[in-house]
Amino acid sequence: MKYKIAIIVGSLRKNSYSGQIAGYLSQVFSDSFEIVRIPIGDLALYNPDLDEEPSLTPESWQIFRDTMRTCDAVLFVTPEYNRALPAALKNALDVGSRPYGSSIWDNKPGCCVSVSPGMIGGFSAQHQLRQSLVTLNVRVMQQPEAYLSQVHKLLAEDGPISRPDTRAFLQELVDSFEKWIVLLSR
Amino acid sequence: MKYKIAIIVGSLRKNSYSGQIAGYLSQVFSDSFEIVRIPIGDLALYNPDLDEEPSLTPESWQIFRDTMRTCDAVLFVTPEYNRALPAALKNALDVGSRPYGSSIWDNKPGCCVSVSPGMIGGFSAQHQLRQSLVTLNVRVMQQPEAYLSQVHKLLAEDGPISRPDTRAFLQELVDSFEKWIVLLSR
Amino acid sequence: MKYKIAIIVGSLRKNSYSGQIAGYLSQVFSDSFEIVRIPIGDLALYNPDLDEEPSLTPESWQIFRDTMRTCDAVLFVTPEYNRALPAALKNALDVGSRPYGSSIWDNKPGCCVSVSPGMIGGFSAQHQLRQSLVTLNVRVMQQPEAYLSQVHKLLAEDGPISRPDTRAFLQELVDSFEKWIVLLSR
Amino acid sequence: MKYKIAIIVGSLRKNSYSGQIAGYLSQVFSDSFEIVRIPIGDLALYNPDLDEEPSLTPESWQIFRDTMRTCDAVLFVTPEYNRALPAALKNALDVGSRPYGSSIWDNKPGCCVSVSPGMIGGFSAQHQLRQSLVTLNVRVMQQPEAYLSQVHKLLAEDGPISRPDTRAFLQELVDSFEKWIVLLSR
Repeated sequence: MKYKIAIIVGSLRKNSYSGQIAGYLSQVFSDSFEIVRIPIGDLALYNPDLDEEPSLTPESWQIFRDTMRTCDAVLFVTPEYNRALPAALKNALDVGSRPYGSSIWDNKPGCCVSVSPGMIGGFSAQHQLRQSLVTLNVRVMQQPEAYLSQVHKLLAEDGPISRPDTRAFLQELVDSFEKWIVLLSR
Repeated sequence: MKYKIAIIVGSLRKNSYSGQIAGYLSQVFSDSFEIVRIPIGDLALYNPDLDEEPSLTPESWQIFRDTMRTCDAVLFVTPEYNRALPAALKNALDVGSRPYGSSIWDNKPGCCVSVSPGMIGGFSAQHQLRQSLVTLNVRVMQQPEAYLSQVHKLLAEDGPISRPDTRAFLQELVDSFEKWIVLLSR
Repeated sequence: MKYKIAIIVGSLRKNSYSGQIAGYLSQVFSDSFEIVRIPIGDLALYNPDLDEEPSLTPESWQIFRDTMRTCDAVLFVTPEYNRALPAALKNALDVGSRPYGSSIWDNKPGCCVSVSPGMIGGFSAQHQLRQSLVTLNVRVMQQPEAYLSQVHKLLAEDGPISRPDTRAFLQELVDSFEKWIVLLSR
Repeated sequence: MKYKIAIIVGSLRKNSYSGQIAGYLSQVFSDSFEIVRIPIGDLALYNPDLDEEPSLTPESWQIFRDTMRTCDAVLFVTPEYNRALPAALKNALDVGSRPYGSSIWDNKPGCCVSVSPGMIGGFSAQHQLRQSLVTLNVRVMQQPEAYLSQVHKLLAEDGPISRPDTRAFLQELVDSFEKWIVLLSR
């Protein structure tokens, strides 16, 4: 049986760097893993009032929750906006965490990648994400850490990830995450 | 001439604790200050593609930006969701910060209040907010810090903020913020 | 064979709350675990120059590193000073992480507890600790989180941890940590 | 009358990058500012027991506190160790903050610079520093932010800061800090 991994991309841009990196990563998992990209751009802004009764709950929330429930692990690839998570990704975290007691995050193995055209590689976004994932009980892999600085240079002319050292690093990341998932699923 | 202060509430709940605290605070500023609550619940999730040309920009973003531009300072009152800012508030930060070069946050004096029914008082949400406000150049007042723990107890039966020590603390907060605004506006 | 767990206490106070909590915790592990408290108060402030050659390295650093190397896992119990780790604990992290390539932290299962006489329970200290432990590759247990607010009330008159719910919570923490250690040691 | 600015360097290395950057910065303030570098390497690790009575207080703490009290503002230049402040700098913050009620930090204008040979520029160290400075009521300048990535390249062969754009940036930082000090001292 395959493990099913959800990839969630923090940017809503059509040609986002995060999306391109996510696309590359999804191709280098081994055959034991099925990769599914989960869209988050249509989720209504989280408002607890809308979880008061099922008739109020947006359909987009329900679809997201139902889909995530079928996944065994989660890989986040996100840019940083104003030294923090994009609202779209924070929203997905919040929508998935409720109603109280039925979080879809609990106990899933996780992996975080941040990307940035700047030098700092989305460090702050990634660590705010990790901070939320403590309370959500996503069991995040510690190492390797992936802060992809100057990501546009990694995605240049001759196709995604032309630099061999970056390809090797991303493969190491994926291999480590595969082992982490298997270890925690025992 | 009056200073105009925007109050932004992080929760979209109809009867949110944050909204009640914001309502109380807005009543205890002195006459030199006009207080305006700025809604953020209708803002579409931030997507940089929609700022590529004005015809794509959601009207809700434009209204928010135009309104914020008329304000001299900003007071945030926010809950914490999953150890971080609610998506709605992060979204408002991002929408206001763009397009690049025309941020509506730059140089405004600011004040942060976090609230929580739990013990920790929204500490993490407030400090993630402060972290974004560094790069947004909102000049945030350092002290007093306001982490309103067990906020539901502060808002009990006989009207908002029945406890004299909490009233005194909130008045001190407002007085300090007024002085901070005047100092930075010289 | 027993697992050996290092307990590191962030406070240097003789009768610190952290030390008392650490003492209590060390008594409620099951027989498969040996608990050793590792002192950090004598470690000279970390200065990379002193690792340039072995003759310069303070003996206190060497003893700490050698002792930690014999441990299979690590439990931190720390107060918060000025919204951050006490210098003594940060120093132990840095001393243990060097010289480059011979960190004593790498791959150890870990657990973090923060304590405070105030409301916020050392939240910020604990999360700064967790942030360092990502890069140090200490595999920190996510849940349960332990922020012991108003810790002096937990340690009152009739002996440590008189409240049954707190005892139950700390037992759950220890049981979960035991399972986490066993899982990661496979 | 001149303003007196304390420069505190987070690294204890003899030829640290932080120290070199601090040395450069201290030369580009205008004549209205006197710059004093305050050593922190001899401060005993903070232990509240030693503040219980004056006879116990280390002389090094007293000297540091007395010196800092004569300063009008403070400039921090720090590396990052393990994604956090070096223990030496955290220790100086703690020593200066006590005994309770006689903090030497309160109300001083402040500026933070982080340096790193890596890409991320000490982001995390700087923001943990800023987080402590909220509670210590150091009124930190928000902009410009200074994260000096790959700092060894800035300090190359032909003398400190050979790149004109970096010199211009550091001059802008110093000019802004001067204005910030003057504004807050009114």
